[in-house]
Amino acid sequence: MTPNADRFLADLHMLRTFGGDDAPGSKGVRRRAFTDADLAARDLLADRFQEAGLTPHMDPAGNLFGLADAERSLLMGSHSDTQPEGGWLDGAYGVIAALEVARTAQEAGGPPISVVSFQDEEGRFGALTGSSLWSGKLSMEAADKLVATDGTTWPEARARIADRAGDWVDPARFNGFLEAHIEQGPVLDAADEAVGVVTGIVGLRQFHITVHGQQNHAGTTPMGMRKDAFTIAARIATALPDRFANVVTPQTVWTIGHIRLHPGSQSVVPGRAEFSLQWRDIAADRLDRMERVINDLLEEMSVETGCEITLDKLRHDLAPMPMDDAMQKALSDAAEEVAPGRWRSMPSGALHDASNLAGLMPVGMLFVPSINGISHAFEEDTKEPDLVTGVEVLARAVQRLG
Amino acid sequence: MTPNADRFLADLHMLRTFGGDDAPGSKGVRRRAFTDADLAARDLLADRFQEAGLTPHMDPAGNLFGLADAERSLLMGSHSDTQPEGGWLDGAYGVIAALEVARTAQEAGGPPISVVSFQDEEGRFGALTGSSLWSGKLSMEAADKLVATDGTTWPEARARIADRAGDWVDPARFNGFLEAHIEQGPVLDAADEAVGVVTGIVGLRQFHITVHGQQNHAGTTPMGMRKDAFTIAARIATALPDRFANVVTPQTVWTIGHIRLHPGSQSVVPGRAEFSLQWRDIAADRLDRMERVINDLLEEMSVETGCEITLDKLRHDLAPMPMDDAMQKALSDAAEEVAPGRWRSMPSGALHDASNLAGLMPVGMLFVPSINGISHAFEEDTKEPDLVTGVEVLARAVQRLG
Repeated sequence: MTPNADRFLADLHMLRTFGGDDAPGSKGVRRRAFTDADLAARDLLADRFQEAGLTPHMDPAGNLFGLADAERSLLMGSHSDTQPEGGWLDGAYGVIAALEVARTAQEAGGPPISVVSFQDEEGRFGALTGSSLWSGKLSMEAADKLVATDGTTWPEARARIADRAGDWVDPARFNGFLEAHIEQGPVLDAADEAVGVVTGIVGLRQFHITVHGQQNHAGTTPMGMRKDAFTIAARIATALPDRFANVVTPQTVWTIGHIRLHPGSQSVVPGRAEFSLQWRDIAADRLDRMERVINDLLEEMSVETGCEITLDKLRHDLAPMPMDDAMQKALSDAAEEVAPGRWRSMPSGALHDASNLAGLMPVGMLFVPSINGISHAFEEDTKEPDLVTGVEVLARAVQRLG
Repeated sequence: MTPNADRFLADLHMLRTFGGDDAPGSKGVRRRAFTDADLAARDLLADRFQEAGLTPHMDPAGNLFGLADAERSLLMGSHSDTQPEGGWLDGAYGVIAALEVARTAQEAGGPPISVVSFQDEEGRFGALTGSSLWSGKLSMEAADKLVATDGTTWPEARARIADRAGDWVDPARFNGFLEAHIEQGPVLDAADEAVGVVTGIVGLRQFHITVHGQQNHAGTTPMGMRKDAFTIAARIATALPDRFANVVTPQTVWTIGHIRLHPGSQSVVPGRAEFSLQWRDIAADRLDRMERVINDLLEEMSVETGCEITLDKLRHDLAPMPMDDAMQKALSDAAEEVAPGRWRSMPSGALHDASNLAGLMPVGMLFVPSINGISHAFEEDTKEPDLVTGVEVLARAVQRLG
């Protein structure tokens, strides 16, 4: 059961022409959900699904399925919408890889494979909008209130597919979901590895922290009499690596991505510092322990400096989502066959449609490298041999899953 | 030569009614330069100068003088404009104290004293605008380009005083300038002292520093592969106290009052951090040494992290401005007489009109306490006995200067 590398790459490059950037040499794509380019790409995919013996079916959310003619099948795919200025592989790779594996399986008499391209994974309206609707995590009533930054409403968007869309597809017809995706991080590329078998999608927690200091004149207030909110925020940031040392793994991450000082003037000692602290890990208990470390640190800093430090937990904490063991095993065995010593198990630090499906069926994910870790940018790319290796691993894994 | 405390306090409270906040118990004042309240206050001051035997004279910048009938006199005063929401003593104290000392000296046959209220010290248009024009540091051509945040231009502002203004006053008719002011900092209040004899106005330097990191996805980029611009900025801020330890005095200050992260998103590793670092000291060589410490630290951090760190020095570095020795001596001796053991020598961390006059004539400054160090706010206040003590010290110092 060997995929056709040329056919796969030809389709992948063909998909890139929908919304493709005109600049010479650019592989960039503008294919925002529900735009002309996106809908034309979905029409093209529907044709390809038909040619491959799959029944094209668009659901009310714009998710496009290619359904295998079987009572139960394995669902494979990803999404074909992009960021406003996106790369050519983010999502597209998983959709065309799934199509190629479905064709290969059909030709080789393998197990029945259905294919899907979810809609608005990149969040023009919400986040993972299409798979959230299909999986029941988002209601159509709630979705109808979503508005894109350009003012387009979700009802306006789905009006565009009124003539294409049918009913919802019953998730029970699928015995699992397998998604291939570019890593969108630097790990595989830096290690010169071809494949990552995803152990799970990391959980995420986030605090919005406010240090309440004392606003003062930056010329007349001696250092010893200051309650400088920025100095305290900087000490918190600087203390974190040591405080986390015995808790984290090399795959744990934490980020202060935003900070605002009040009043934010060069000549005023900051009276208030507000900043975000986000941490991600594959293990829920490690997220808990990190939260305790952070709370202890904030408490100590508050006592030491005499400044109140308050926090609000974000409403949308996300729990870690482990991948199915049997899927991981099939992918790992296949990876070792196709690319011995050039693959690893790794968490996904980014969210994917697979997160939404994990409650419905067994889910697995496979990563291929991102050159220099770049994604969500025109420069996003992966070496073609690595793209092909990923499809070969998928095909063998499907064969093993039976 | 003893000032009349009741007369002095009555005038000080009277001045407060011009632009005074209506709220019960509030001592706050809104008397922005060239507003109706400011000009009415200057008319009142002109009347009081006249009553005190001084000749009122407004110059083309709106600075209001009360000129002694003598070939040479000592100039005393400050400013009577306020911040948009200012205190009742900032500037006003120095003007009314000067008026009271001028009256006292005249009654006691003391040396001739002229009085001044400079215009727009609080920077509705520029910064220390009136004294900058009078001292020649700012030309009228340059001033005519200044625009207040409410859109009022400097030419529109000075059109309001066209019927009041005369020619420039020749600085050569003054043999020195003596300014009393509230401290606007917490030092005297915290030490329960009544008077500060100013040794000089501190110099100020400022860097605008940019850390050039690498923008990355906050989920997919392992900690060890990050070039997080905020983390580096926080380490710089946290390292400064140790690095400065053998260079600074308890009166040296430094401040990071502003920071901006790019892109400033909770889920993105900051690719760039821009922040201000300002430092102030009374000694130019210490400002130099601090600058070397900062440059060394930035260089080390750049080498250690592999991130470029760039800086632009602000155009308006300000040199320290020492006060005249004889003025300091006269003020110190007077302070020890009036408030033995309850005064100190100290630098001024804030700018004052006296900075502009130091190139023209010998300059001295005296501080009285600010309760809790608060200024530029309605809550600004000083105990009345301390206000009176300051005037008594001024009067005795003037007598000593002869």
